[in-house]
Amino acid sequence: MARRSIEDTSIVMVGAGNLATNLAKALYRKGFRIVQVYSRTRESAQGLAQVVEAEYTTDLTELVKDAKLYIVSLKDAVLVQLLPDIVAGKEKALWVHTAGSIPMSIWEGHVERYGVFYPMQTFSKQREVNFSHIPIFVEGSSAENTQFLKEVAAALSVKVFEASSEQRKSLHLSAIFACNFTNHMYALADKLLKKYDLPFDVMLPLIDETARKVHELEPKAAQTGPAIRFDENVINGHLQMLADEPRVQELYRLISESIHQSSKE
Amino acid sequence: MARRSIEDTSIVMVGAGNLATNLAKALYRKGFRIVQVYSRTRESAQGLAQVVEAEYTTDLTELVKDAKLYIVSLKDAVLVQLLPDIVAGKEKALWVHTAGSIPMSIWEGHVERYGVFYPMQTFSKQREVNFSHIPIFVEGSSAENTQFLKEVAAALSVKVFEASSEQRKSLHLSAIFACNFTNHMYALADKLLKKYDLPFDVMLPLIDETARKVHELEPKAAQTGPAIRFDENVINGHLQMLADEPRVQELYRLISESIHQSSKE
Repeated sequence: MARRSIEDTSIVMVGAGNLATNLAKALYRKGFRIVQVYSRTRESAQGLAQVVEAEYTTDLTELVKDAKLYIVSLKDAVLVQLLPDIVAGKEKALWVHTAGSIPMSIWEGHVERYGVFYPMQTFSKQREVNFSHIPIFVEGSSAENTQFLKEVAAALSVKVFEASSEQRKSLHLSAIFACNFTNHMYALADKLLKKYDLPFDVMLPLIDETARKVHELEPKAAQTGPAIRFDENVINGHLQMLADEPRVQELYRLISESIHQSSKE
Repeated sequence: MARRSIEDTSIVMVGAGNLATNLAKALYRKGFRIVQVYSRTRESAQGLAQVVEAEYTTDLTELVKDAKLYIVSLKDAVLVQLLPDIVAGKEKALWVHTAGSIPMSIWEGHVERYGVFYPMQTFSKQREVNFSHIPIFVEGSSAENTQFLKEVAAALSVKVFEASSEQRKSLHLSAIFACNFTNHMYALADKLLKKYDLPFDVMLPLIDETARKVHELEPKAAQTGPAIRFDENVINGHLQMLADEPRVQELYRLISESIHQSSKE
């Protein structure tokens, strides 16, 4: 019997947020069949469904029953709360969630075949990302399910890994620092520049080089600036400049101390 | 009379640290004549001098007296302390420092012609950077000096700006967030990954995308992660994982609060 290709997999996307949108588009562009998109809001459901040529619904009881793979990408708390409603009547399908922070065991007792499909990247609806080098971490409730998820992932990216729930939790925590907190540092710089009527664009070569540098040097070796040597003249000058923003001032002080401590370790 | 080209400018580098090393190499590669390198340590002075085909000295009293431009790139506190010794007998030359945080006025009363030459970038000796798109901010004690410094800068980069000492101070503070603090976020991620036996390399696609994203979106619009919606389940889980690192835990808590606050502004 001829083996069907992995792209014949019919997929339902439960959720149409930043990650779901980018993942669904990437799967669609690789030839996977997205049959339905669910979102709580019609705008999100319909918006994504149109792009990936799928049906859409805003009603969980209307989820199609015969898809092969259900990808659930909802806020963590919502997933936990709605899980029984989501899977009802479709307990034989393969179910995955996409959250770094949620263990695979959340599916236990609800469905028979399940797993996790975690693409570690920062996704925004406004920007379509290229999946080809995004690390995708998969975990399955059986060797067969794991293998299947690895094949789906391999259709999108050259970087596919198996990771346990424990490892994924660690990756997710690290990613918060490397991405979310990093972006907030950009945001704080942006806010300061706006205050001084200077354009954020001027920071881009510095931001790019800071990122490029850690491809070659360990972050600790790449560290520069007044905090390493705890140059009190410069640091105190900056703390004064931040006097009208106590929260940002406190962050400046703590991060500088942390850099200085790290340099001595 | 034929105009001499800007590259004929003879330059003395006072300092051979990260910035001085990268700046001297960039000037040298553009054809400028670096005549002498000073550093407190022979290793640094000689190391840089060899690359840029200059003499070197570790003795400030031996600085050559007839160079056209003296670029002083020392730690802020050292510059302030040694300034009279550095300039002695060379008060007619053009003097610049390269520090974001030090006002131009530091030269007043010491020399007649002076300014600031501030390339805003993160420099490490181990990595040679391409200057062509680095913003260089110049300030001069006269229109003529400013113009001359702009010409030197324009030989290195397409992004040359005049900036007052006040503006430069603001740029420097913003750069601390966009670069030094960002790199520390990478370093904290690296430390966590090491603890869990995971390789830092796996973060690079995320780090690169986080940097690329703010070329298109404002940092605030690019923000993702559990802190925006202050997802307490995820945040509390992460705080627990950081229980044995109180300083990092406190940073996690404060940065998450700051992200959440910013999202409401």
